[in-house]
Amino acid sequence: MQNIQNFISENKTRFISELFSLLKIPSVSADPAFKKDVFDMADAIKIQLETIGFSDVEICSTAGYPVVYAQKIINSSLPTILVYGHYDVQPATPLDLWISPPFEPELREEKIYARGACDDKGQVFMHLKALEFMISNNSLPCNVKIMIEGEEEVGSDNLPIFVRNNKEKLKADIILISDTAIIDNEIPSIDCGLRGLSYVEVEVTGPGRDLHSGVYGGAVANPINILCDMISKMHDENRQITIPHFYDDVQDLTQAERQLLANAPFDLENYKKDLHISEILGEKGFSTTERASIRPTLDVNGIWGGYIGEGAKTVLPSKASAKISMRLVPNQDSKTITNLFQSYFESISPPSVKVIVKPHHGGEAYVTPIDSIGYKAAEKAMELTFGKKPVPTRGGGSIPIVALFEKELGVKSILMGFGLDTDAIHSPNEHYGVFNLLKGIETIPYFYKFYTEMSK
Amino acid sequence: MQNIQNFISENKTRFISELFSLLKIPSVSADPAFKKDVFDMADAIKIQLETIGFSDVEICSTAGYPVVYAQKIINSSLPTILVYGHYDVQPATPLDLWISPPFEPELREEKIYARGACDDKGQVFMHLKALEFMISNNSLPCNVKIMIEGEEEVGSDNLPIFVRNNKEKLKADIILISDTAIIDNEIPSIDCGLRGLSYVEVEVTGPGRDLHSGVYGGAVANPINILCDMISKMHDENRQITIPHFYDDVQDLTQAERQLLANAPFDLENYKKDLHISEILGEKGFSTTERASIRPTLDVNGIWGGYIGEGAKTVLPSKASAKISMRLVPNQDSKTITNLFQSYFESISPPSVKVIVKPHHGGEAYVTPIDSIGYKAAEKAMELTFGKKPVPTRGGGSIPIVALFEKELGVKSILMGFGLDTDAIHSPNEHYGVFNLLKGIETIPYFYKFYTEMSK
Repeated sequence: MQNIQNFISENKTRFISELFSLLKIPSVSADPAFKKDVFDMADAIKIQLETIGFSDVEICSTAGYPVVYAQKIINSSLPTILVYGHYDVQPATPLDLWISPPFEPELREEKIYARGACDDKGQVFMHLKALEFMISNNSLPCNVKIMIEGEEEVGSDNLPIFVRNNKEKLKADIILISDTAIIDNEIPSIDCGLRGLSYVEVEVTGPGRDLHSGVYGGAVANPINILCDMISKMHDENRQITIPHFYDDVQDLTQAERQLLANAPFDLENYKKDLHISEILGEKGFSTTERASIRPTLDVNGIWGGYIGEGAKTVLPSKASAKISMRLVPNQDSKTITNLFQSYFESISPPSVKVIVKPHHGGEAYVTPIDSIGYKAAEKAMELTFGKKPVPTRGGGSIPIVALFEKELGVKSILMGFGLDTDAIHSPNEHYGVFNLLKGIETIPYFYKFYTEMSK
Repeated sequence: MQNIQNFISENKTRFISELFSLLKIPSVSADPAFKKDVFDMADAIKIQLETIGFSDVEICSTAGYPVVYAQKIINSSLPTILVYGHYDVQPATPLDLWISPPFEPELREEKIYARGACDDKGQVFMHLKALEFMISNNSLPCNVKIMIEGEEEVGSDNLPIFVRNNKEKLKADIILISDTAIIDNEIPSIDCGLRGLSYVEVEVTGPGRDLHSGVYGGAVANPINILCDMISKMHDENRQITIPHFYDDVQDLTQAERQLLANAPFDLENYKKDLHISEILGEKGFSTTERASIRPTLDVNGIWGGYIGEGAKTVLPSKASAKISMRLVPNQDSKTITNLFQSYFESISPPSVKVIVKPHHGGEAYVTPIDSIGYKAAEKAMELTFGKKPVPTRGGGSIPIVALFEKELGVKSILMGFGLDTDAIHSPNEHYGVFNLLKGIETIPYFYKFYTEMSK
């Protein structure tokens, strides 16, 4: 397939320019201020699909943002690949930390800087261009269905209903997703496990109004101090989570499995250097790789309360709040964990405050078997384009929809992502390497080829 | 002095209208956005002083906001009363909790609602009107000096220099301050003790940039979780502060002194009802009154970090911050306490994060002797106008400048305030009762009379 390389080198400038136009649309699903932009983004994806040769592209309404759907059925006896991705992005705040504005994409040192450059517009775009190649030269070896949603960054709340209502339409043999990272441009890898997620927001209320901390301080519970106490009680001295029964359903890996994970290259000094930290911190008895992949965790993602402006204000505030998420591992149920969190949080709240726990969204963990045809096709495709056999890894992030697909459609997903952990997704200065973008476009057609051949 | 009551009833409407015009100026000293308004407020005070009969009113520049100064020397052999107050106000945030806008004063149910209505514009205004009365009918019995500053709510950083440079100008026999509260309109009281203050801002930095909590969560220290742990470590299970040597300089009250405090009326059920709390919380072994007056405390006044917008963001943030203040009691030194806090905070910070402690401002605690002429004159004046002898109390708030006056000028201060603890100073819907405003105007001339007589 020499011509895929020609196709890429001939069209590289156009690809970047087309991707830029998608990155300019601030499709932030979490913030209602960007509502129109998210809908505009769905239209932009539709136009792209039509341009590369899909007819009858549908913008499927949901109770939230729509799913863009298209398909090309060559022959019903051939296998069908369902491509999943998302066109919404994380909020870009804090804006002042961006070197170039998040929605004005910029190419610097062969990297594309913009919110969504990697997660997930850049990676969705690779599929569009790989399909453009296969359709334009008639080399598409199997059927393809495409489903790009707009609510991944806010928990895909409406996708389960969409999937349940469209089981026939979404029928496929394998799902292909590029929304994950490789270890390094020199060390390709495929995520064969993902963590699940339970995300909650908590609010602690002390007095019914903000008080003067001089007049009331010391005599009345301060909701910030109490919230800190409660958050602090969520971990023990070994950084294990203290919620009763939290670990009950965790299936411990065997020593052999842990050994396989330990084989993946990892340089602690480089890791610390990259993050500007002098020490790591995590659960006792586990390696950094394990802590970030096969172990469940609890992190505060946001906290606020009282006076946070310039200068000093001696207020004893009425309320304090936090956003808290837990990453889950296979066999932990996100609803069960959310309930355990809620019970525990309420049980440790002193009578001097009132607490509210509001579940945001959740999702289940997932494992891809490495002996499946899908995994082997992806492995072979990457081995060919990278010149190295990819390493199977376990990702720490969550794509809750992957567990849903398995449950509702009975189809496994292959997480063939091309990002890097250093791409700063969800952070200021998110970027995506041009190398990675093009390597994705190059690799995807091989996946189609090998998957079709192996399915025979 | 029947005519003070006539003066008040004849001019009540004008008083409220004049006070409204002062309350309309958003003189928030903590926020640079209001810089011009704070200066405008100094001008407005100058004009008020000129209108009531002071010539040569000075607007004295400082490195920050100016001090407005005026004096009337009748006879150098007569005693001199120095009036201190402040024309700056606390920030008005959160704005959405105000029933009427903070800088559009409104009269509802005989209460004036506005930021600064009580603290301290309303209470400063009482002095202006009492002086207007005494000057207009030639009944001022002694010399008077007036000093109204514009940085009280941000720690009076520039006042010490001003006081040190103007010792001769500020020479007085007693300082009279109305910036405190009485127990109840039926139970007058005089604060004869104030707590000191140490106010710091802390910043905890984990990774050098915001990270994806799925990819790094569990493996890297989360600065919010760490900050919560550290704040939680500031109190033990008895709600005592754990900073080593924190209590070393606290002089415990005798049983007799504690009994005197316990005599001040206090209704726990009403207290809880007013604050909408079902339980109080404070240091073991002390009453609510003691916790809020004679015991040092530590409160978080503000906390922030990570994603605090709408919806959910799975970020492991780079930084988390908090504003923390400690209320101090007589004999605790605010600088020493700030240093103790800093050492402790640094000592409990794990190696996986970096911490910065930035001192904001501080001030010393203060005690007024109840057998002094100043206290006795205030007691007699209030007894006359309220019909009841005022109760000596110990306030929980801080007016750091009071300790400074004693140190630099060798002059004691009388804290004859007319506010109520329920006035919501520093909170949304701050207000000041018209009863309290007029009772202050009525009482002040008697203080001048009795103080002059007792000084003979």
